[in-house]
Amino acid sequence: MASPGAETEKPGNHNDFVQLCNPHVAAMKEDVLYHFSLSTSTHDFPTMFGDVKHGMGIPSIAIMLHELIKLLYHARCSDVTLIRIGTSGGIGLEPGSVVITRQAVDGCFKQEFEQIVLGKRVVRNTHLDDWLVQELVRCSADLGEFPTVVGNTMCTLDFYEGQGRLDGALCSYAEKDKQEYLRAAYEAGIRNIEMESSVFAAMCNACGLRAAVVCVTLLNRLEGDQISSPHEVLAEYQQRPQRLVGHFIKKCLAAA
Amino acid sequence: MASPGAETEKPGNHNDFVQLCNPHVAAMKEDVLYHFSLSTSTHDFPTMFGDVKHGMGIPSIAIMLHELIKLLYHARCSDVTLIRIGTSGGIGLEPGSVVITRQAVDGCFKQEFEQIVLGKRVVRNTHLDDWLVQELVRCSADLGEFPTVVGNTMCTLDFYEGQGRLDGALCSYAEKDKQEYLRAAYEAGIRNIEMESSVFAAMCNACGLRAAVVCVTLLNRLEGDQISSPHEVLAEYQQRPQRLVGHFIKKCLAAA
Repeated sequence: MASPGAETEKPGNHNDFVQLCNPHVAAMKEDVLYHFSLSTSTHDFPTMFGDVKHGMGIPSIAIMLHELIKLLYHARCSDVTLIRIGTSGGIGLEPGSVVITRQAVDGCFKQEFEQIVLGKRVVRNTHLDDWLVQELVRCSADLGEFPTVVGNTMCTLDFYEGQGRLDGALCSYAEKDKQEYLRAAYEAGIRNIEMESSVFAAMCNACGLRAAVVCVTLLNRLEGDQISSPHEVLAEYQQRPQRLVGHFIKKCLAAA
Repeated sequence: MASPGAETEKPGNHNDFVQLCNPHVAAMKEDVLYHFSLSTSTHDFPTMFGDVKHGMGIPSIAIMLHELIKLLYHARCSDVTLIRIGTSGGIGLEPGSVVITRQAVDGCFKQEFEQIVLGKRVVRNTHLDDWLVQELVRCSADLGEFPTVVGNTMCTLDFYEGQGRLDGALCSYAEKDKQEYLRAAYEAGIRNIEMESSVFAAMCNACGLRAAVVCVTLLNRLEGDQISSPHEVLAEYQQRPQRLVGHFIKKCLAAA
């Protein structure tokens, strides 16, 4: 999306086309984005997607990001911002609070994303854009509709054991161990837990894309594991990140 | 599903109800399977799902398995076999070949699944049922419709870099490095690559469920990265694991 440059200076020079972090793609005669059912030989990417600048939040985010970033590259998009919006479990927050992520961290509270590439561990930085965090905080204050905090976000591979829940099919620890872990997470500045932010931050970082993560918390994990609020309440909670990011986009468009 | 006990003796005693590997669930007054929108207080699990014994193959398989295994437990299912069917990239096989997994291995070719639980690394065994492998091999011979091999299956977190592809948004290695990696994988007995088998094997193992993985290969990764076969060819390939497992289920029902 365009950026609200009128109010504050964006750091760095983002005004250029999407760059891949892969020298092979430019040399390929055809590139099939398999999971999107799109090919550069059968679809005109610049016409179809040249103006794509929207947010996103889905599982299998790594596959989607590989193909989305390639799509943005083939479509010659420029000055792109990616914002993941979604839901999460909160730590020590009133349910319905929105967390803007300062750092995405792993299950050991480390600010990194580890991946196996050709049999070797590759560790990537999960830094998110500080300027964007501050802009989103300002947007939340403008709206004044729901509590919003800036905090670290823990990203896990598993929803149950991986997030210290007691209600999965597997569990080898007690309530006390879980409470200790979640309280240690809180001490480390973690305010919510979800399952996409670290790879999202790592890939955006590697490809030089400005990125943010905005998630609403559906429950306070210090008080329980199961999401038991009524459907209408959850549905309203889930709109909060959209409303916040929607406000940000409108502000950007007004400033463009 | 019921097992074809008439032909060979199944090892171990599988004739009992699904057991969770978590002491907390039995004590819960209500259990909400959030991602399935089901609760033990609002749905009669034994009536709704007591006869569920089908195969499966979807992303987010860990979340699904936690909730599916709990569903099987609440429904008091017994003598359950879980079979993951799906697609994969082959190594050194003719596209369309079906691989029955002997061992699920990680990106370093190790037969284990590593997970972070309460901030500590937990390593689980990814053993799959040998008896079931042999039964499925026999079923494939009965059918005689497509090439089927038994081999190790590499399970990765990423479809692009994680599988040594050159066509992702990120890639920091050359064709030569990729070929070396895939050939080393072949030497280690790996015949296909997908993204679910290790956690599937680990969780079924931990909960004492008999399990198998049957995937068709859509391409030979030694020859390329992109899946470029015509849609009709891929659609026929994708039916192969279903046809094989369907034959196995019929054989089981006939023997029951």
